[in-house]
Amino acid sequence: MEYNKRSAVSTVPNAAPLRVGFIGLSYSKGWAIKTHYPAILQLSSQFQITALYSPQVDESLATIQHLKLSNATAFPTLETFAASSNVDMIVVSIQTLQHFSLLLPLIEHSKLNPNLRYLFVEWPLACTVDEAEKICAAAAQRGLQTIISLQGRKSPYVLRAKELISQGYIGEINSIEIAGNGGWFGYERPVKSPDFIYDMGNATDIVNTTFGHTIDILQYMCGSYFGRINSMIFNNIPQQEVVDEHGAPLGRKVKKSVPGHLLFQGTLLRGNVPVSCSIKGGKPTKKFTKNLVIDIHGTKGDLKLEGDAGFAEISNLVLYYSGIKSNDVNPNLNQTPTSNTHNPMPNNYDSGKELMEVYHLRNYNAVLGNIFRLYESIADFHFNTKKIPNLPSQFIMQGFEFEGFPTLMDALILQRLIDNVYRSHLIGSTLNVSNISQTI
Amino acid sequence: MEYNKRSAVSTVPNAAPLRVGFIGLSYSKGWAIKTHYPAILQLSSQFQITALYSPQVDESLATIQHLKLSNATAFPTLETFAASSNVDMIVVSIQTLQHFSLLLPLIEHSKLNPNLRYLFVEWPLACTVDEAEKICAAAAQRGLQTIISLQGRKSPYVLRAKELISQGYIGEINSIEIAGNGGWFGYERPVKSPDFIYDMGNATDIVNTTFGHTIDILQYMCGSYFGRINSMIFNNIPQQEVVDEHGAPLGRKVKKSVPGHLLFQGTLLRGNVPVSCSIKGGKPTKKFTKNLVIDIHGTKGDLKLEGDAGFAEISNLVLYYSGIKSNDVNPNLNQTPTSNTHNPMPNNYDSGKELMEVYHLRNYNAVLGNIFRLYESIADFHFNTKKIPNLPSQFIMQGFEFEGFPTLMDALILQRLIDNVYRSHLIGSTLNVSNISQTI
Ligand SMILES: NC(=O)c1ccc[n+]([C@@H]2O[C@H](COP(=O)([O-])OP(=O)(O)OC[C@H]3O[C@@H](n4cnc5c(N)ncnc54)[C@H](O)[C@@H]3O)[C@@H](O)[C@H]2O)c1
Ligand SMILES: NC(=O)c1ccc[n+]([C@@H]2O[C@H](COP(=O)([O-])OP(=O)(O)OC[C@H]3O[C@@H](n4cnc5c(N)ncnc54)[C@H](O)[C@@H]3O)[C@@H](O)[C@H]2O)c1
Repeated sequence: MEYNKRSAVSTVPNAAPLRVGFIGLSYSKGWAIKTHYPAILQLSSQFQITALYSPQVDESLATIQHLKLSNATAFPTLETFAASSNVDMIVVSIQTLQHFSLLLPLIEHSKLNPNLRYLFVEWPLACTVDEAEKICAAAAQRGLQTIISLQGRKSPYVLRAKELISQGYIGEINSIEIAGNGGWFGYERPVKSPDFIYDMGNATDIVNTTFGHTIDILQYMCGSYFGRINSMIFNNIPQQEVVDEHGAPLGRKVKKSVPGHLLFQGTLLRGNVPVSCSIKGGKPTKKFTKNLVIDIHGTKGDLKLEGDAGFAEISNLVLYYSGIKSNDVNPNLNQTPTSNTHNPMPNNYDSGKELMEVYHLRNYNAVLGNIFRLYESIADFHFNTKKIPNLPSQFIMQGFEFEGFPTLMDALILQRLIDNVYRSHLIGSTLNVSNISQTI
Repeated sequence: MEYNKRSAVSTVPNAAPLRVGFIGLSYSKGWAIKTHYPAILQLSSQFQITALYSPQVDESLATIQHLKLSNATAFPTLETFAASSNVDMIVVSIQTLQHFSLLLPLIEHSKLNPNLRYLFVEWPLACTVDEAEKICAAAAQRGLQTIISLQGRKSPYVLRAKELISQGYIGEINSIEIAGNGGWFGYERPVKSPDFIYDMGNATDIVNTTFGHTIDILQYMCGSYFGRINSMIFNNIPQQEVVDEHGAPLGRKVKKSVPGHLLFQGTLLRGNVPVSCSIKGGKPTKKFTKNLVIDIHGTKGDLKLEGDAGFAEISNLVLYYSGIKSNDVNPNLNQTPTSNTHNPMPNNYDSGKELMEVYHLRNYNAVLGNIFRLYESIADFHFNTKKIPNLPSQFIMQGFEFEGFPTLMDALILQRLIDNVYRSHLIGSTLNVSNISQTI
C-alpha cells in the first residue's frame, strides 16, 4: 500500500521550505514546544518558523532568542502577523477557549497575505459546534487548506489496524467495545494540571479528549461514521483531592464540573455495527482492564488495541490480531462483504489456520511521533513528495483515506458528533447522526 | 455472615418432607430431569415428588416408572393435579410460551388444595410483562409463597462478590462493564437446539436469558435496581448456518428473528453508577475477551467475574478481587457511603496494602449446584433449618437480601426491566425505570 511509502530522498532539493507562522509557541511551556517544535526541527528542510505571535511581544522575542529562531519575526499584533506575506502556513496551538475569538479575526486579516495556504489548528476545534462551524466556514471561504491535529490517525498502530480491516483480515465487523480512562477526572487531581480543564465549557474534558480522539480513531479505522447514538454523562465526583506527582494527597479539595464518566453506545453506519463505549474519568485505575481498549470483533478475526493511558493519540500502544488471513478458505470473497445473503464466516473455518499477531514498537515515542508524522504528511502533500501526478492543491476533508491528513472539516464532523453526545444525554434520546458528515 | 450458615444436621428429623407436584418433569428430556430432579434427590429428606402432570398421562406414568417415583401419582388433568391435597409445592418447568395459559388455571384450581404453600416457576416467567403481572397477581391473591429459578443468585461466586461489595471491600462502586455472549444467536446454529428459541416472542432470546440472568445477578450483587436505561437491539444476522456439535456446517441455512446483539447502558439507582453492557449473539467467539465478563470498579478495589459461556447462572466462574481490604486506611467509614462531600478513596491509599484474591471452585458443577442451592434455600425456609425466631410464613420478594430466594415478584421486576429494554429500543429513548420495583 502506498500511504506510508517514502521517497528515497526525504529532503526536497530545490523547493523552499514552508514558512510557518506560529501562534502559541513559547520556549517555556505548552504543547507546541513539546511536540510541534521538535517535529518542525526534524523536518527543517520542509518547515521553517518565520513568524511568531503572542499578545506579549516580549514572550515571542524571548522564545526566538531561546530557541535561536534566526528566521523568525515577532509580531506585536494579530493584524500584522496575519498580514505578513512571509508566512505560508499558520499554526495555532493555544487554549481552546480562545480559538473562536482569535481564529475569525486571524482569517479575516490574513486576506492581506497572498502567500498563506495552510492553517493548522489544534484539536479540540473551539468550544462549541457553532463556533467550529463558523471557523470552518470562514477558513473554507478564505480558501485555505486546513489541518487539525487529530494526530491519532497517524499512529502506526491505528494505520496498521485500518489496513488489516480494509484488507478483510477480520472479515465483516460484528461488534466493538471501547473502554478508556481520562486520567485526571476521577477522585484525584494532579497538582500540576491546569484548573480550567475541570470546568465545563472549556472543551478539554473526557468527552472532547479521550472520547473525541478515540472515537475519531475508531471511525477512521473502521471507515464509517455513526448512525444512531445514545449517551449518558455523569459527574458523580463533583469534588477532587489534589495530589502530587506521586499520588500523595496535598490535603486540598477542589470542585470539578466536567463529566467524570461517559457511557456511549451506537451503531456504525457501515454494517449497522453495535459499538459500546465506557469512558472512566480517572482515578482509581481499573485493576483488571487497561486504560485504553478498543476491541473489534469481526467475522474472520478480532483486533484489540490496548494502551496504558486513555489517550490513544499520544500513546504507545499494542495491537493484537487473531484470525484467519489466508484468502483461499472463503470462496465468496468477490461478493459484497456486507451482503447478508450468505454466511460471512468461512464455511470451512479451520482453527488450525488461525493466526495471532502482536504489533508493538518498543521504542516509539508516540507523543512526538504522531505529531511528527502529521507534519510529514503536510510536507508530502505540499511538496508532492510521492510524485503523485495531478495532485490537487486542496482538499476539504480527509474522510477515511489513508493518504492526506485530517482537516478542520474532519474536526467539525467530530465536533458535531460530540455535540450530539451531549444532546443525547440532555434529551435522553437515541439520536440519528447519520447526517452530520455533510460538508459545509 | 449468616446467609450461608448451615445447621450441623441438614436433615430434618421430625418433619415430613415437602410434597412436590411437578409439571414438566420427563425422564427422557428437558431441563427438569437434568437439574431439578437431581437436586430433589439430593434433598430427599426435604422434598419428595408426589404428583406429576403432563397432558399425556402416559408420559407421566413412564417417568414414574423410569425414575421409580414410588410416591408419585400421575394426574390426567390439570384440575385434578391442582386440587390434589397431597401436594405442598408445585414446580412448573415447561416452555415459557405455555406459562400463561397453564399458570392462571393452575392457580385457580389449586384453591381446592388447602395444603398448597409453594409455587416454583422456571425463568423466564411468561412471555410478556403483562402475562407476568397477571400471574404474579394471581399467585399473590392465592396467597402462595413463590419461587423463581433465577438461580444465579445462589451461585457461590455471586454471593461472594455480593459479600465483598456489601462489606465495603471495593468501596463505593464507580462504574461497571458487562460483556456476554448468548452462544447460539450468531452466524452458527447448533443443530440440536430447538427452533422456537430463534423466533421472537418466545422469550428465550439473549435479552431474556443472557441479559436477563446477568443483569439480575448484577443488581443482586450491587444491591440496586436501575435508574435510567437505554438500549439498542440488533438483528444483523437474520440467517444462520446450521452446524453440528463440532461446528461443522451441515449445509442448511435457517431464518432467525430474535436479536443477534444487544447494547445496553444505564445507571444504577444506588450511587448513579454507570453500567455499560454489550451482549453478543453468538459465533464467532471473541478472541481476546471472555464470553462472560462483569467488571466492577470501586473506589477501593475492583471485582471481575469471568466465565466461558454467557450463562452466568449455570456456569462455573472465576472471581477476581483486587483492592485494599483493611479498614483503617479510611477514617471516613462512618459516613454514609454515598456522600459526596468527602473523597471516598482512602487518603493514604497504600498500594502496598493492595490484595489480589482469586476465587474458583475447580470441581463445582454450577448447572446442578445453583439449582441445588436454590432448593436448599426453600428447605431452609420451610423447615426453618437455621432456627430463626419468628420466621414468617411468607415473603413477597427477596429483593437484595442474602437470605431467602427469588420470587415471582423478583421475576416480575426483571421482566419489567426487559420490557423497558425493548421499549427503549423501539422508541429510541432513554427511559427512567426507577419505579419498576414496585410490588403488586
Ligand atoms: N492530543 C492533542 O492533540 C493535544 C494535546 C495537548 C494539547 N492540545 C491542544 O494544544 C493547544 C495548546 O495547548 P497548551 O496547553 O499548550 O495551551 P496554552 O494555553 O498553554 O497556550 C500555549 C501558549 O500559547 C500562548 N497563547 C495563549 N493565548 C494566546 C493568544 N490568544 N494569542 C497568542 N498566543 C497565545 C501562551 O503564551 C502559551 O505559552 C490546545 O488547543 C490544546 O487543546 C492538543
Ligand atoms: N437457567 C435457567 O434457569 C433455565 C435453563 C434452561 C431452561 N430453563 C427453563 O426451564 C423450563 C423448561 O425448559 P425445557 O427446555 O425443559 O422445556 P420443555 O418445553 O422441553 O418442557 C419440558 C417438559 O415439560 C412437558 N410439558 C410441556 N408442556 C407442558 C404442559 N403444557 N403441561 C405439562 N407438561 C408440559 C413436556 O412433556 C417436556 O417433557 C423453561 O421455562 C425454560 O425457560 C431455565
